[in-house]
Amino acid sequence: MKSVKASAPATVANVSCGFDIFGFAVEAPADEVIVTLTDNPGVTISKIVGDDGRLPREAEKNTSGVAVLEFLKAIDSKLGANIELYKHLPLGSGMGSSAASSAAALVAINELHGNPLTREQLLPFAMESERIACGSAHADNVAPSLLGGFVLIRGYAPLDVASIPTPAELYCTLVHPHLELKTEDSRRVLKPSIPIKDAITQWGNIAGMVVGLMKPDYGLIQRSLHDVVAEPIRSVLIPGFHKIKEEAMQAGALGCGISGSGPTIFALSSERAVAERVGKAMQQQFDLLKLKSDVFVSRINGEGAKILSA
Amino acid sequence: MKSVKASAPATVANVSCGFDIFGFAVEAPADEVIVTLTDNPGVTISKIVGDDGRLPREAEKNTSGVAVLEFLKAIDSKLGANIELYKHLPLGSGMGSSAASSAAALVAINELHGNPLTREQLLPFAMESERIACGSAHADNVAPSLLGGFVLIRGYAPLDVASIPTPAELYCTLVHPHLELKTEDSRRVLKPSIPIKDAITQWGNIAGMVVGLMKPDYGLIQRSLHDVVAEPIRSVLIPGFHKIKEEAMQAGALGCGISGSGPTIFALSSERAVAERVGKAMQQQFDLLKLKSDVFVSRINGEGAKILSA
Repeated sequence: MKSVKASAPATVANVSCGFDIFGFAVEAPADEVIVTLTDNPGVTISKIVGDDGRLPREAEKNTSGVAVLEFLKAIDSKLGANIELYKHLPLGSGMGSSAASSAAALVAINELHGNPLTREQLLPFAMESERIACGSAHADNVAPSLLGGFVLIRGYAPLDVASIPTPAELYCTLVHPHLELKTEDSRRVLKPSIPIKDAITQWGNIAGMVVGLMKPDYGLIQRSLHDVVAEPIRSVLIPGFHKIKEEAMQAGALGCGISGSGPTIFALSSERAVAERVGKAMQQQFDLLKLKSDVFVSRINGEGAKILSA
Repeated sequence: MKSVKASAPATVANVSCGFDIFGFAVEAPADEVIVTLTDNPGVTISKIVGDDGRLPREAEKNTSGVAVLEFLKAIDSKLGANIELYKHLPLGSGMGSSAASSAAALVAINELHGNPLTREQLLPFAMESERIACGSAHADNVAPSLLGGFVLIRGYAPLDVASIPTPAELYCTLVHPHLELKTEDSRRVLKPSIPIKDAITQWGNIAGMVVGLMKPDYGLIQRSLHDVVAEPIRSVLIPGFHKIKEEAMQAGALGCGISGSGPTIFALSSERAVAERVGKAMQQQFDLLKLKSDVFVSRINGEGAKILSA
């Protein structure tokens, strides 16, 4: 039967000020899948590499499996599929690991059917698999992983996603300490209401970020990359966060914050050399805490999930 | 002594989703001033027309007077000034009446001194006069009245203002019912904290509004022009608000909301003919409530305060 190999990239959700509404894709790391059509209906997962045996092998409990099941149901397919999943994203890292697996599986299964659906139309299936993974059908990782670029989730009722143009010279540094946080736990620490004063600060920064990206105006981006809502609470779960952020800014970053719900920390810079220097400075701090970490530097990935070979 | 005549336009603050951070200028109405240099230090107000005798004549209590006093102090001038103020903006209307008077006075006094300061540098003086007028030194009326265009107040510490490009074909309808609301009272009804859920809705719309304006994407502007924070509370102070808004949308507006703290209602449309139809539909509703109203239709005013003659 026909097989397709596809990949989907890691993503940074929230992006400091844009809690629950901003997300962007990076170039690496990326999860890969090989999806093969089967004559029997239903979805199987024959192989998962790179998860140390920790992800569920039942399709109904695995994000890539759920996404493909939802797709097949939606197009009323009589065929089934088998998935081989090659994890390159660490689990519980705040880099959109679950989203990348389902995004890759979705572009593969869509390709195998001759692409009946657009990328936007694939989104709800990926969101469904986020519900399985972390308890809420959020789109701020799956949307950028599927669509690429810097994405705004304006709202969910109905789902309204817009791409935000970004300057070509915008680099992301990701530093992933070898720690794990569950999105579910990380959401639980947030307060159900916030002072109106903080809300106004946050939305000034959100608007500033969008204006800064679209003009572009790096100074405005820098002044806008602040989070008074989630970071003050979630940062306590990340050892050394404030010192690491300080070092990133010292090294020339435009801004630095928690990627998604952490513990990965992202920074944005206006030059590759700065982004690499920022990565070294951040990693050094984790080293001092005897925490191993991985560093990834890339531009914003405008492409998102992609077919590698048929 | 030298005299300069200047004007500054009405402004729409908040713009539905952008509570305390968005404001834009319209073409009419506009306040006018004639400012004359005097040899004696200090500021006098020799004439105010159009306020039915309600504005204070003491410079220290009048927004135009305070603004000019602050300017003269800042540049360490040994001269004084006299102000004639021609009010065309109704008081307590939510159209930035106090802001327009001080913006006009500031560009006049700056011109009389050979423009030592930029428009941005004049902002703090105008904000000081807002403090006199309504108890808080907010910039969301004075910034667009002074600078023109659609303005973002990203934050206040320090003051950070950015202009947001808007499509040429964007028309504002203002309908001003003959009612008065004090900004101070209108602020008092707001709650000190908001549910995080509402905050997220609001910032999704704020980002959507900026992306919509800058792309431009009228559909996105339309979907983003909602306010879940101030409008539900403040609208109860405006008779017939929900019906009027419904009629504006029926008539083809992209969105409709309270201008500043009201009672003026604004609508945005993508064509002049629609903006005029929207104005008629809204006025008709006020007519049914036996409330007289004025309608103003214009593009976003990119120029702001201006010198009329020297």
